[in-house]
Amino acid sequence: MPEATLWRTSPNLALNQLVAERRAAGDDVVHLAFGESRLPAFGPLTERLARGADRNAYGPVAGGEPVRRAAAGYFSRRNMPTGPDQIVVGPGSKPLLMALQHVLPGDVLIPRPAWNSYVPQARLAGKTAFEVPIPSECGGIPDPAALRDVVRQARAAGGDPRIVVLTLPDNPTGTLAPPALVREICAAAEELDLVIISDEIYRDIVHDPATPFLSPAEVAPERTIVTNGLSKTLALGGWRIGVCRFPDNAWGLSVRDGVTSVASEVWSTLAGPMQEVAAYAFAEPEEIRQRLSASARLHGAVARAVYEIMVDAGATCRPPTGGFYVYPDFEPLRTHLAWRGVTDSAGLQRHLLDTYGVLVLGGHHLGDDAGALRFKAATSMLYGETAEEQERSLAAADPLALPHVERVLSRLKETFTKLSQ
Amino acid sequence: MPEATLWRTSPNLALNQLVAERRAAGDDVVHLAFGESRLPAFGPLTERLARGADRNAYGPVAGGEPVRRAAAGYFSRRNMPTGPDQIVVGPGSKPLLMALQHVLPGDVLIPRPAWNSYVPQARLAGKTAFEVPIPSECGGIPDPAALRDVVRQARAAGGDPRIVVLTLPDNPTGTLAPPALVREICAAAEELDLVIISDEIYRDIVHDPATPFLSPAEVAPERTIVTNGLSKTLALGGWRIGVCRFPDNAWGLSVRDGVTSVASEVWSTLAGPMQEVAAYAFAEPEEIRQRLSASARLHGAVARAVYEIMVDAGATCRPPTGGFYVYPDFEPLRTHLAWRGVTDSAGLQRHLLDTYGVLVLGGHHLGDDAGALRFKAATSMLYGETAEEQERSLAAADPLALPHVERVLSRLKETFTKLSQ
Repeated sequence: MPEATLWRTSPNLALNQLVAERRAAGDDVVHLAFGESRLPAFGPLTERLARGADRNAYGPVAGGEPVRRAAAGYFSRRNMPTGPDQIVVGPGSKPLLMALQHVLPGDVLIPRPAWNSYVPQARLAGKTAFEVPIPSECGGIPDPAALRDVVRQARAAGGDPRIVVLTLPDNPTGTLAPPALVREICAAAEELDLVIISDEIYRDIVHDPATPFLSPAEVAPERTIVTNGLSKTLALGGWRIGVCRFPDNAWGLSVRDGVTSVASEVWSTLAGPMQEVAAYAFAEPEEIRQRLSASARLHGAVARAVYEIMVDAGATCRPPTGGFYVYPDFEPLRTHLAWRGVTDSAGLQRHLLDTYGVLVLGGHHLGDDAGALRFKAATSMLYGETAEEQERSLAAADPLALPHVERVLSRLKETFTKLSQ
Repeated sequence: MPEATLWRTSPNLALNQLVAERRAAGDDVVHLAFGESRLPAFGPLTERLARGADRNAYGPVAGGEPVRRAAAGYFSRRNMPTGPDQIVVGPGSKPLLMALQHVLPGDVLIPRPAWNSYVPQARLAGKTAFEVPIPSECGGIPDPAALRDVVRQARAAGGDPRIVVLTLPDNPTGTLAPPALVREICAAAEELDLVIISDEIYRDIVHDPATPFLSPAEVAPERTIVTNGLSKTLALGGWRIGVCRFPDNAWGLSVRDGVTSVASEVWSTLAGPMQEVAAYAFAEPEEIRQRLSASARLHGAVARAVYEIMVDAGATCRPPTGGFYVYPDFEPLRTHLAWRGVTDSAGLQRHLLDTYGVLVLGGHHLGDDAGALRFKAATSMLYGETAEEQERSLAAADPLALPHVERVLSRLKETFTKLSQ
């Protein structure tokens, strides 16, 4: 037999399993290391799933016409006019992002820090991933000047970066690139002839409805491919529903054909009952719109509360405006933490778990400088342990006042106060 | 923008869409080009799907303990003792096979002809696919002597074949490698130090329950990885449920870790509601066992009827014993077909569609010699147009006597009689 290679599971999913095991063993762990919207499946969605049970035939690879039409409407209502032929659905946005890596030629530019699957996917597709620092203002996009430098240096050294991945709103920083920066990064992409992949899986989780959202697909429609899905916005991570939107030009449709080809060899199609769910959700009837706003409001309230806990403890942190993450930097406490033996992000992650039972995802897992004292905290699993508590969190005008939310936030407050003392 | 690359959809799925379009346009096409078991979803399975709707959280990458335990039982009952830790479930066996190609080092040996996704998957993983002719007795395995030759030649030329893919029962030939040949191919794999991937997606569709089934995992357990799923045996292609079983040794478990790692970056996990379905189905309660036998009986009866039509028309053909395919060779009619301008498998496929409205999958799509006059005919979509007709086919002691089955078989009989005249 060949030598065994060491493979590691995506760290967020691995830590999720670790927590489940520790909790099963009786440990009381606060789990901030997994980007799951811990809310119940919305009733009308479960009805659609059951209704879709008779869809046991394979059907078209890209998805049936009804779900593609609904997704096209979803994008069109967001200032990206779209026809059903520009859409491919899949079992999550992950496999769609993977297929794009297989199909698009050249190497990939990824913000640093970024979601932990972009780089491994690039490697699986045989690509080099170039990591580019984010600006101080927000995450999810590379700093435009740094992007130009990295591309020029890479090309001078014989590298071939041709794709840049953006995340709006961002995972891990919980911020949303403002329109001016989106315009700037799109201009850089045009100048450098880069394809833009805009991962908008948190699109409908912008905390303040007044915050302007500008998609790169509005600014540079001819070169931007958008991915999205229902895992985050409708708390359906375990149902695996993703969507990809391609530009309406010959190049865009050839990339769509490529993704459809990869899909046909790798996953066949999105499961029929899930297409039924997606067709309903992407059509956005009133009850879905209400669910989306209630979710965004809840995610925002709790993310801001955790942000304040971090800042009060002495960290610097970009204020969260979208998604359900904060990404604090404990650099101001470096000397203090060094007394405790904590000198890097792996040490900080370990210290928080071992001493306080609080699990975060160290920045080193996200491509960030291992020596920094930064981590990602997902704030989306603090809404209660039962479906009933979670629904109350969603319905509450002030979720922070609910005892089950207040309790876990107090524990976090206490933890980070102690950490800073 | 970069130049558009030409990508093609997996030919079976592409032809499936073509038929849907021609039928929508009013054409009466007999569709033999797609390996879908065209039967309704079994009632108890649809109940399980609805019951699993509350499983909207991600859960463990490899699948939860209940579904892995059920799948372990499924394999254990088939003379492959298995623990839950040897199991990974996924959205179909396709992505599991793809992940294996990413994880296992070296190039791949594939029977010729074979299912049309093995070779494209190997290419996506950056591997070379070596095709090895099948023996005259059956498909799904390379001829052992030819395998030795190909491996030696490839290695002498600097190639690195280290994996052989087997299909039991076979797609496209509808045959099952007999135990003696399975032992022989396993001996060759040991001698050549090849990993065996045994694709057993048609495992429970053996037409005659008395036919012995010997899995390579019984003969060479330490080096054999088995894939399976519910798409074919329970007619759930559109639900996307697959399973992979790894050897219970350090190497096997390291490959499992690799597949889990790839899964965590590419598809996260099998959808929760589908895990609920799979846990029930793999436990094989009485009603599932009955459904499996009824399906195998129906597939066998119709495959044999189509086989007889082909042989009566003058083709040579291996008698089908498993799955729902026949793979006739019209070489005996070469001179006759040449008069009609048909000289290769693409021409034969086109002639059958254009002249008779019968769609088959030419052998050239399956890696076979393009100049041969062979094609795959899937016989699993001849059971009726409505769920009611299909259920009657499944329940009938003699499905061939049902008017809706008899009608389409008569049309095929007429077509191939005309072809031979």
